[in-house]
This record gives sequence, C-alpha cells and structure tokens, in this order.
Amino acid sequence: MTRYQHLAALLQQRIEHGLYQCGERLPSVRALSEEHGVSLSTVQQAYHLLEARRLIIPQPRSGYYVAPRKATPPMPGLTRPAQRPVEISQWESVLELFNNCPENSEFNFGGGSPDIDQSSLAPLWKSLTRLCQRQDPRVMSYGNMFGAAELREQVARLTLDSGCRLTEDDIVITTGCQEALFTAIRAVCQPGDIVAVESPTFPGTMQILRGLGIKAIEIPTCAVTGISLDALELALEQWPVKAVLMVPTCNNPLGFTMPDKYKKALIVLAQRFDLAIIEDDAYGELAYEYPRPRTIKSFDEDGRVLLCSSFSKSIAPGLRVGWIAPGRYLERVLHTKYISTGYTVTHTQLAVAEFIRQGDYQPHLRRMRMQYKSNLEVFTCWVRHYFPSEICVSRPQGGFLVWIELPESFDTLRLNREVSAAGIKIAAGSLFSASGKYRNCLRLNYARPFTEEVEKGLRLLGESASRLLEEATTAK
Amino acid sequence: MTRYQHLAALLQQRIEHGLYQCGERLPSVRALSEEHGVSLSTVQQAYHLLEARRLIIPQPRSGYYVAPRKATPPMPGLTRPAQRPVEISQWESVLELFNNCPENSEFNFGGGSPDIDQSSLAPLWKSLTRLCQRQDPRVMSYGNMFGAAELREQVARLTLDSGCRLTEDDIVITTGCQEALFTAIRAVCQPGDIVAVESPTFPGTMQILRGLGIKAIEIPTCAVTGISLDALELALEQWPVKAVLMVPTCNNPLGFTMPDKYKKALIVLAQRFDLAIIEDDAYGELAYEYPRPRTIKSFDEDGRVLLCSSFSKSIAPGLRVGWIAPGRYLERVLHTKYISTGYTVTHTQLAVAEFIRQGDYQPHLRRMRMQYKSNLEVFTCWVRHYFPSEICVSRPQGGFLVWIELPESFDTLRLNREVSAAGIKIAAGSLFSASGKYRNCLRLNYARPFTEEVEKGLRLLGESASRLLEEATTAK
Repeated sequence: MTRYQHLAALLQQRIEHGLYQCGERLPSVRALSEEHGVSLSTVQQAYHLLEARRLIIPQPRSGYYVAPRKATPPMPGLTRPAQRPVEISQWESVLELFNNCPENSEFNFGGGSPDIDQSSLAPLWKSLTRLCQRQDPRVMSYGNMFGAAELREQVARLTLDSGCRLTEDDIVITTGCQEALFTAIRAVCQPGDIVAVESPTFPGTMQILRGLGIKAIEIPTCAVTGISLDALELALEQWPVKAVLMVPTCNNPLGFTMPDKYKKALIVLAQRFDLAIIEDDAYGELAYEYPRPRTIKSFDEDGRVLLCSSFSKSIAPGLRVGWIAPGRYLERVLHTKYISTGYTVTHTQLAVAEFIRQGDYQPHLRRMRMQYKSNLEVFTCWVRHYFPSEICVSRPQGGFLVWIELPESFDTLRLNREVSAAGIKIAAGSLFSASGKYRNCLRLNYARPFTEEVEKGLRLLGESASRLLEEATTAK
Repeated sequence: MTRYQHLAALLQQRIEHGLYQCGERLPSVRALSEEHGVSLSTVQQAYHLLEARRLIIPQPRSGYYVAPRKATPPMPGLTRPAQRPVEISQWESVLELFNNCPENSEFNFGGGSPDIDQSSLAPLWKSLTRLCQRQDPRVMSYGNMFGAAELREQVARLTLDSGCRLTEDDIVITTGCQEALFTAIRAVCQPGDIVAVESPTFPGTMQILRGLGIKAIEIPTCAVTGISLDALELALEQWPVKAVLMVPTCNNPLGFTMPDKYKKALIVLAQRFDLAIIEDDAYGELAYEYPRPRTIKSFDEDGRVLLCSSFSKSIAPGLRVGWIAPGRYLERVLHTKYISTGYTVTHTQLAVAEFIRQGDYQPHLRRMRMQYKSNLEVFTCWVRHYFPSEICVSRPQGGFLVWIELPESFDTLRLNREVSAAGIKIAAGSLFSASGKYRNCLRLNYARPFTEEVEKGLRLLGESASRLLEEATTAK
C-alpha cells in the first residue's frame, strides 16, 4: 500500500467511525501534511481517492467536506426462477445487444471484456511479435488437434493451483471458453435433454442449450453461496436432469464463489443422480482471495466433471485460447471440436504458453486481481451515489462484473434502449434467464481503470434509471 | 517461362512426337547449347527438369537417354457408391490418422496443407508482426461477431472473381472453412435429415454429418465433371433430401471442376426439389485455369446456396480464417457461430485483410497455382514410375491433391499401417466414404516443391504398394 492509500484508509476509517461527521469540514491539506509528516501532494492524492469513493466532497476555495452517508446497498436475495424445464428464448435480445451498440463505445459496461491495456502484458506482446518476426512455420500450420503440447503442459500445471491433478493428455485446447462449453454440452446431452443451471446464467451458455434443443431448469441461486443445493436436489428428484452447468467460482453474473463444502456436496449429489457437471471456471483465476478457490473438478472422483476455462478473462479475449479438461468425455469432446472448427489458431497458443512458462502470467494475474478489487470499491460507491436508493448490488468475490437489482416494476430493456442512444452499453438482466426473468436487473463491467469518463457514464446511466423508476412508480 | 523451361518443353515435345526414340542418346549439352544459343547451364537445367519428369535417364560419363515410356495412367471411372442414405462410420480411422503419424513427418502426403514456405507470404508476415509490434488493441479484443469489417469487405471483392455479387454484410468470418461448413449444415438440417454428397467426400464434412446425426446419400461422381446429375435426380425423387453438399471447383479429393452448365443445372434441380446447396470452395482460388471458374453461388437466384471457403488452402491453415456467405440462412449461421466459438481470432483476420488490400494476395495465388500445376506434372510422372502399373490417377484442375485408385483387391488401410512406420503419411480412401468404400484408393498431397526427399517418399510408398498388390493378387 502506498503512502497516500494508507492515509486515505486512515481518513476513511475516521469518517466511518464518526470521528468526522457528515457535512463537517475536513482538516486542510497543509494541516494533514504536518500531522502525518507527508508531502502536500500525498495528502492531495489521498483526498482525491476519498472523493472518488464519494466519501468526501470538495468545495471550491474552501476545502473538503464529509459527504452525506448512504448505507451499503443490500445484496440481491435468493433468486426465484420458475422451477420447471423451459425452452430458452431471448436470442433476439442477444443479437440486438451485438448489433445496436458501437463496438468501441466509450461507456461499455455491457460486455465481458477484461482490461487489456496493461503493461504486464508486454512480455506476451513480445512473444507474439517474435513468433511472426522469425516466421515460425508453426504459426501457419494446422498444428495438433488437441492443441499445442507446450500450452497443454502449462495449463495442466496451472490447474494444480485449483487443486486438480491433470496432465497435458487430459486437456484439449479450444477456441475460447465458448468452444469448451459447446463441446462439453454436446458431449453429455442429446436434443430434448434437461440441464440444470444457476439462475441467472451467462447468455452464451444459455444460447448453446437453445441451439442444441436442450431444456434448462433454472435453480434458485444465492448471491453469496451459489446454487441452492436443496432446490437442485428437489429438481433432480422431479426431473430426468442430465447435467448441471455452473460458474461456481467468481460467478458470472452474480459474483459469488461457492464454498468448498458446497462444491463437495454437489459432487455427492451428482454421483447419486449420475449427473455430469459442466464447470465454467473462466473467472476463477481472478478470485480476490489467495490462494485461489478450488474447482469442483478438484473433488471429482470418477471423471464426471468437465472443467471449461480460457485466457479470455485472465489475459485477453482476442487470443481465442480456451481449454477443457473433459474427464471421461474426452473422445466425444474431441469429435465435436474436430467437426466444428478442427483446430485452434496456433500463434496465440504458443505465445500464451511462453507467457506462462517465463513466469509472466502470475504477476499479471496479481496485478489484475488488485485492480479489479480496488475498482469494485469505487464502482460500488458510484453506483450507490448515482442509482436509485432502492437497488440491491452484488459483492463479487473476483472478476469484474457486478449485478444490480432494481425494484420489480423496473424494465432494464427500456433502460438499455434509452441509454444505448447515448453510446452506453449495458447487459440487461433478461439475457441471463431462460424464461425472460430479471427484467429489473442489469450486469455492469468494472474492469477498466476508473476515470472521469467511467464516472460520467455511470452518472448518465444512474440518472436514466432514476427517471425510469420514477415513471414506473407513478404509472402504478 | 524461363529459358531452360522453354528448352525443356521443346525437348519434351520432340520426345513425345518420337523424334527422339525410346533408349536413344540425346544430343550432348555442348551441342544443344550451340544449337539453341543458350548457356551450358541452361541446357543442364533443362535436362534436370526432364529427368525429374522421368522422360530421360542420365548415364554417368555418357549423357542422357530417352526413358522407356509408360502410358499416362487412366483416370478413375465414375464412382459407384451405395445409393441409399447411410449413417457415417469411420471416425476411428480419422482419429487414427491424427494420432499415429508424427506432425512434421518428412513424407507427409496425407494432410491437406498447402506449401506455406513461400517468399510471397513475406508481406503477410510483416502485417502480422506490425500488428503485434505496435500493440494494436484489436488483437486482444473480442472484435465483431460477424468478423472484422475490413476483411469482410475484401472477401466480398474477391468473390467478384467467381461471378458473385456480395457485400460485406452477406459474409460471416469463421474459424477456418470447417466452421463455415459446420454452421452451414446446422443451418439447413435437423438430426435424422438426409444430405446428398459427392462420392468420395472430404472426411471433415462427413464427420459433421455423423456428429449431427444426419444421414448421407453418396452420389456417383465422375473424376472429370463431378457429381452425376442424373444419379442425383434419381436420389431426389426417391428420398427426402434436405441439401446437397459439394466441392464443385478443384474438388477434394478427385480434383475435377464441374462445368458451368452442370452448375447451372444443379441450381435448377435444387429449385425444383427445394434443396439448399452447401458449396465448399476452399480450393477454388487454386484453379489452374485463368480466370478462375465460377461458383454455384454465382448462379444462385434465391439465396439457397451457402458458399463456404477459407484462406487455409490459398494462404495457410494456421491462420484459422474462413468465411461463409450463407444467403437466406444468415441468422441461423450466426446463431451457430455464436454458440460454438463466439468469435474468430482477430489478429490473423486483420493481417489477411491487409495482405489482400495491398495487392499481395493475387501475386501469391498466381505463384502457388503455377507451383502446384508444375508439381502435379512431376508428381504424376513419379507415381507412374514407382506405383504398380494398374493404377488410375486423377487429373486435378487445381489445388494440390491427387486421387489414386488401385485394383479392387488392394487395401490402403494396410498400406497406411505399413508405411506409417517409415514416417510416411497418406490419406486412405475409406476415409472419404460414409460406408467404408474406396479401400483400394488413396489421396496424396503434392503441394511441396519436389525434392529428392519427396521422390524418396513416393518411391517407398510405391514399392510398398507394389508388394502389397502382389500379395493380394497371389492370395486370390
């Protein structure tokens, strides 16, 4: 922690403990500088940070004042989806999301992109450049259908951190996590089958189910501990469910990490009902806690867990490098990969392998985890500041996605249409349900460093949301 | 044509017209040099070329002699597959092909890789390097689900050469041609449907049908003009066929190009039976004739043709850049792409777009066409020289794949097992049939420049084939 962050933390504590009261004028920069024996600019930086966190307000030519306090918004409660198998709708809305918004929109809170603008990626850029500069023939060749051996070796080593014991032969490289999930679902399901999912669920997965003619049964999910195992068990007793599909670590979109004992209990349940478990760990490496949480796969005893992941969130999505450890379903996964794309691009595979092998991946991960964690704090402050006070907000355990719930009457599709005209991109909540629930919710991306632009976007968004909520309430 | 190629052509003509008889001694290097007013080394080069073509034989310290003539081997006749819908087998053999042979085998005649070792690719390497060197953020980003706009624009322009009038909005970039074919087949078929295919057919396509639970009806196909339209019509009258799937230009594996009038007639047939046509044009740009043949798509009137292609054969497969112009099936293709991979890697898309825009693609194509055409001549000579005399050999109109048919009793799977121990990779004929036909056939790749190594590989292969054939004949 730098000096100014330390000072900011101290002042924040005083404000939270009521030593400085709401509306009270804070000590001058000079006074604080003398009190703590730090430079004037250190005090300035600390004040800027507290200002960014909405804890203090500057008054021109007068100094800083303690801001009116808002309570931390509550977390969303247990979700209550319809607990019967349904066919998935919502493709039109997904398509609209892709079509309607400018790709490089200034206010892109909608997508799932990490911050790719980090100097810790410099060694990766160097590897990419070097491979092309020396005209490495592998860049132009088909390579191996399983994926580059050097990358599979590194991936196998990485999975040790999540408690797995895999070798390179257990791993197939895929075109992003999307292909991993697609091959996994095709490996364990037939059209007409039923798959249990967390609710809300990532739209990319839901659309796979739709595309393959598979029904989803949405299970109530808690924003702290994940899928309700009781509700899941009830569903399993009632319906012939083939697989459970989940993002149990740094969940997208709710941000929870399922506790280990729940992960273990899920394995027992899966054994009892002979289910496959498709585990999407795309955000797992970005958990704020250290060491990172274990995967469900690490508790797997009989190869029934298909672990899917990628470097799209932890490094960059444009690389299109994902992977799957499909357990007993290896050959079926391989067949789907062969028929759907054949091979994954070699160039980025080789560069990522080198990035990990040279020891540059872990420092990058540490940096990103810290950035996302600190962004979350500021972002939540701003959301609390600009959004209607009736919201619930998730408290992510990792990654860079936050889930906001507004009152039942609210319509985020309307909000989406309104703000997209101003170049603001959001992910409407209904995309995350098989049956069009969560119309009153939205998911926002807080990956990028917080700037005035980000704040402006959130302000516009919050203002629109407040106005629409007021209209909705008046209309009632 | 260079001076020595010119001289070689002249001498070859004289040999073929019988001016120099079989076994006759040819003029000395000095004499020819004087006769034609060219340097000694030019004559030497011309003789080496004729030697490579097996037309003349050197005798140490004596000179060159006209080689004993073998007749050009006949072409394979019309194929005779079982004309009823069948389920596709053969996945195990495909897998074996991938597992059993060293990737960078010295004698790789089995795969579908072009020659990627050309200086005409230098500008592409430069683009790839530059994008990484300047850390272009697009390389790391998701980009556009349809594919990079600059590439779709260039692809649309390229399709003008095959008679199409497409805009960038008609085109979706895919992860190789394989993803184009996969999305196309999923767009027009359901499990249980029947698709008509040429026979033999590329295994990558056949496995898509297998994976999607679609039956294939193999239609008799001629090595000169392609699929038999009469046989196809009969099949359409008899079975509820949903689509025809074909490689009508520079066919893989038979090498034919379907004449325009047949392509037109096919459109009429498709309209009459309301069929979709899935046209695989992956080798179309490598046609030896200029201008390149038209696509079936260019005769399409109502969007029923899904044109699939890639830069895997015309540039390099490792790029994983393919595309599809799906006509009226655009939205369904897009859905499959979204669920199976989401996005295609951006880096290589941008580099290929620049390669085309800067005018470097056409010279590269011209060079490759010439190389493959001239390779074919030598390769065929060697095949004729080393293989049993009972073979039939295709005469490809483009690309770099030749189809060899041995007598009925021959078993190329046995040949494959035998030569793979020596590091020789071939594509056994049975991979190209839904029902395990063509066990007596094989496909060879002649993309790489002809070297002593290539000749050695072919010699080993031919010797094995001869021995196995003899055994088979004796056993009878």
